[in-house]
Amino acid sequence: MTAHANLKISIAQINPIVGSFTQNSRLVLDSIADAKSQQADVVLFPELALTGYPPEDLLFRPAFLKKVEKVLHEIASQAKDITVVLGAPVERDGMLFNMACVLRDGEIIAEYAKQNLPNYRVFDEKRYFRRGQHFKHQSPVVEIAGRKIGLLICEDIWKESPIKAAKKADAEAVFVLNASPFRADKESERLSLLERRSRQYDLPIVYANLCGGQDELVFDGDSLIFDRTGQLVFQAPVFDAGVFTHALPFEKAIKPIEPRKSSKQQRIYDALVLGVKDYVHKNGFPGAILGLSGGIDSALTLAIAVDALGAENVEAVMMPFHYTADISKVDAAQQARTLGVKYHEIPIAPIFDSFMKALENAFDGQGRDVTEENIQARSRGVLLMAISNKLGKMLLATGNKSEMAVGYATLYGDMAGGFAPLKDVFKTMVYDLARYRNGQGDGEIIPNRVITRPPSAELAPDQVDEDSLPPYDVLDAILRMFIEEFQSVDEIVAQGYDAETVERVAKMVLLNEYKRRQAAPGVRISKRAFGKDRRYPITSHYRWHLR
Amino acid sequence: MTAHANLKISIAQINPIVGSFTQNSRLVLDSIADAKSQQADVVLFPELALTGYPPEDLLFRPAFLKKVEKVLHEIASQAKDITVVLGAPVERDGMLFNMACVLRDGEIIAEYAKQNLPNYRVFDEKRYFRRGQHFKHQSPVVEIAGRKIGLLICEDIWKESPIKAAKKADAEAVFVLNASPFRADKESERLSLLERRSRQYDLPIVYANLCGGQDELVFDGDSLIFDRTGQLVFQAPVFDAGVFTHALPFEKAIKPIEPRKSSKQQRIYDALVLGVKDYVHKNGFPGAILGLSGGIDSALTLAIAVDALGAENVEAVMMPFHYTADISKVDAAQQARTLGVKYHEIPIAPIFDSFMKALENAFDGQGRDVTEENIQARSRGVLLMAISNKLGKMLLATGNKSEMAVGYATLYGDMAGGFAPLKDVFKTMVYDLARYRNGQGDGEIIPNRVITRPPSAELAPDQVDEDSLPPYDVLDAILRMFIEEFQSVDEIVAQGYDAETVERVAKMVLLNEYKRRQAAPGVRISKRAFGKDRRYPITSHYRWHLR
Repeated sequence: MTAHANLKISIAQINPIVGSFTQNSRLVLDSIADAKSQQADVVLFPELALTGYPPEDLLFRPAFLKKVEKVLHEIASQAKDITVVLGAPVERDGMLFNMACVLRDGEIIAEYAKQNLPNYRVFDEKRYFRRGQHFKHQSPVVEIAGRKIGLLICEDIWKESPIKAAKKADAEAVFVLNASPFRADKESERLSLLERRSRQYDLPIVYANLCGGQDELVFDGDSLIFDRTGQLVFQAPVFDAGVFTHALPFEKAIKPIEPRKSSKQQRIYDALVLGVKDYVHKNGFPGAILGLSGGIDSALTLAIAVDALGAENVEAVMMPFHYTADISKVDAAQQARTLGVKYHEIPIAPIFDSFMKALENAFDGQGRDVTEENIQARSRGVLLMAISNKLGKMLLATGNKSEMAVGYATLYGDMAGGFAPLKDVFKTMVYDLARYRNGQGDGEIIPNRVITRPPSAELAPDQVDEDSLPPYDVLDAILRMFIEEFQSVDEIVAQGYDAETVERVAKMVLLNEYKRRQAAPGVRISKRAFGKDRRYPITSHYRWHLR
Repeated sequence: MTAHANLKISIAQINPIVGSFTQNSRLVLDSIADAKSQQADVVLFPELALTGYPPEDLLFRPAFLKKVEKVLHEIASQAKDITVVLGAPVERDGMLFNMACVLRDGEIIAEYAKQNLPNYRVFDEKRYFRRGQHFKHQSPVVEIAGRKIGLLICEDIWKESPIKAAKKADAEAVFVLNASPFRADKESERLSLLERRSRQYDLPIVYANLCGGQDELVFDGDSLIFDRTGQLVFQAPVFDAGVFTHALPFEKAIKPIEPRKSSKQQRIYDALVLGVKDYVHKNGFPGAILGLSGGIDSALTLAIAVDALGAENVEAVMMPFHYTADISKVDAAQQARTLGVKYHEIPIAPIFDSFMKALENAFDGQGRDVTEENIQARSRGVLLMAISNKLGKMLLATGNKSEMAVGYATLYGDMAGGFAPLKDVFKTMVYDLARYRNGQGDGEIIPNRVITRPPSAELAPDQVDEDSLPPYDVLDAILRMFIEEFQSVDEIVAQGYDAETVERVAKMVLLNEYKRRQAAPGVRISKRAFGKDRRYPITSHYRWHLR
């Protein structure tokens, strides 16, 4: 082969569905056709693009892996006049590898097995895969259109040694296959890492990332190309799939580009919209319903649902009781009207009364307590689930991360639902996102009064959240330090917070693990979300030894 | 030191609580005192006995690890005239190890870091620990009372190389610290492994295991001593804590013992009782309530709850509706009377009617479907949770593994509860356990008619389970192959099962991941329980490609 002056690469930033071989192989074949129509020499897919990421314990099923192999060969037979680099879980010599398969002219011509397997945060890769070091036929570089290309998979680029090995094997450029989930602060980390790596090793880098929601994860796309001097030359869209073709810059680029700028609110809002859209649609639901209380959480959830699914596919249900303020009803109805969603109003007093009457004997001699508040929340939960069941629309739970953290939520009540869009969004960020959404130029999507009035669960007369919780800016700051930074009570207090408050909050967090264990999944946006990211024992007495 | 002819060892088969430093260090100190009063040279504790197993993400908290270190030194200062071998998570050189700490005369005199970290099934040890190979001060043998003792931790004995290394370092015996969770078929595996290892390496082995329930895990104790020829010389009780002192048999034992015999039903029943007892008590509840339907699942759950918590701490609630057979009411009341538990009867018709009336508009023009059945189940769920909240007793969910598997259960309805004792028990085993319990000589604990009548959810007129499900012996066989053995539909069909049935069952299993994600934890007894053991994506289209 003669060395080409240029090499044209297509990045296939696809949105696969876990386990859908039909749909995923169609996506792959369409992307190959697209790349060929743009005269690309090679099309690069993300990590495990063939199966979707993460396939989790499906990887233990021999029939699943057999199917991967079959589909891989079918795709290889379609890889004519183009080289395809495709991520897939592949069994070799009785071991399972997280593989980059290089397909050309009907054959798998080379394979690279991921060397660094993340087993932290949401990742469990050591549960499934063996390290690439055990793979006998490892190809650290592969020849494509006369150029030597080093292959790496996701975590490999965050470490030093794999790119070093590729360089040593005379790589002229590096392709990285990724399934890198969104986090609010990750984009800049990625950019600066790749800038550093390309400069340091004097190698152009092509970074292909997945796109789309998968349970609690959202992959943001945002695929990148850097030249050998650390200059950005291409940046794919975020939260949007597509095939993007570009000349690989073997020399220093003359016209580098600036990284896209976006606010934290915008990135988070867009992640939530894609997360909701993909969870609802990929699970086969045409739309969603939710309880609209007149409060900020449900108002923001409704806006997200409408942006994700379309107003015609979303319904809102207001379920007033004695403690529901009139303005709650007015604001809920107004928002539903503004957004054009179907709106139900179902008072719960007769239901509540029928429960209390049924419980008369069992409760004999007992005073009122939180039980009665829970009955209100659970009456609403049953109504919402009934409408969800009858209409075939997914129920969205509207709780936020601050509430989830301290257990300020009712199991089987307001926690009921298939998906919880705000599960990883602190209350202070809920306000920021509401203001962000209202600033998009299409009107007062969330009624301003909902944003400005004091938050209340409205489960008792004249109740406001701050009766039982510290102000949300204080609460969220403590929660962030305690949950995301693993700080102790003493360390948080040393930063100027009230000792009794911090201790109470920490206790509430640890005491409510049992509720979170039964919560619906939600979109992960932080570096420590409630879900696969945080694995705490329910049975634990650690709360009494915080210092 | 002069070599002793004998070495007296105490096995401290303790039941710690995860994260309870106060209680666990008291258990440790009491065990040391007990061992000393029996003139033991050494007291051997199980794996991570100081913190309880598994501490999960508490291990990421620096304050937690600091506390471990502090308590470890406090215990060391009490280790006078005796050697203490204690499992604890310990940070050394910036790395966290699953450690066996040897304490004597106020000091940590030696440390052994676990070399083989299980990261499969329910285990996530690579998420937390570094392999012992990275520990610079590894002590494969330690001198105790003039004898060289090799130390191993749990998974280490299931591999070859650690005991080989101990032998090479002139070990005269091996101590194994374990946190080995119960499985119905594990006892014999352990016995034959240890028999083989001791014989093969010509070394006596002392195997100390934890005891007690921790969330979904139950540790069964059953600590063991083998002589160097593979003969069993001591077997501690199962499911019971205690300090057991024995002479270490350096020579071939003259009077070996036979391993204890027990039926599978007995082992499982006892595991469920201890699992319920520890979950309820360690989480601070004085007792439990449950919905008693007149069916076999709730009847067995009630028997277990009473055996675990005492009749005076258990309450049963029968919540009849139009479809509840008279014999269901009679049998439920009879069982409650036999067992002496408080019994409530609360009809749900008025509640059901109030829901249907509230939903009239929303349901306008829609026919009856499963929604109405779910409203019945959820009305019961709300009632039970209300009684649980008001009385401070934990609600036990009564569903079994067969139902959990195919989604024959209502989320927030009969699935509501803090703990699900039968979650890992197939329906056919539910019957076996009921018969086993009735055979214990204290009467007809579960009314015989409950065992012999056809099972029904009683959510529709004349409904029986076999209307929607295959017979339970067929269903359970398919489920076992599909869930526990990862067999494909084709492989199961090849064993003589009806293709349509197998495909339908497999689909139901995969489609109902979302329900199980929100289920309460339950006692794990199988090799693939729904819980940490099985990590499936909710969003997955794999169900349509089973072949």
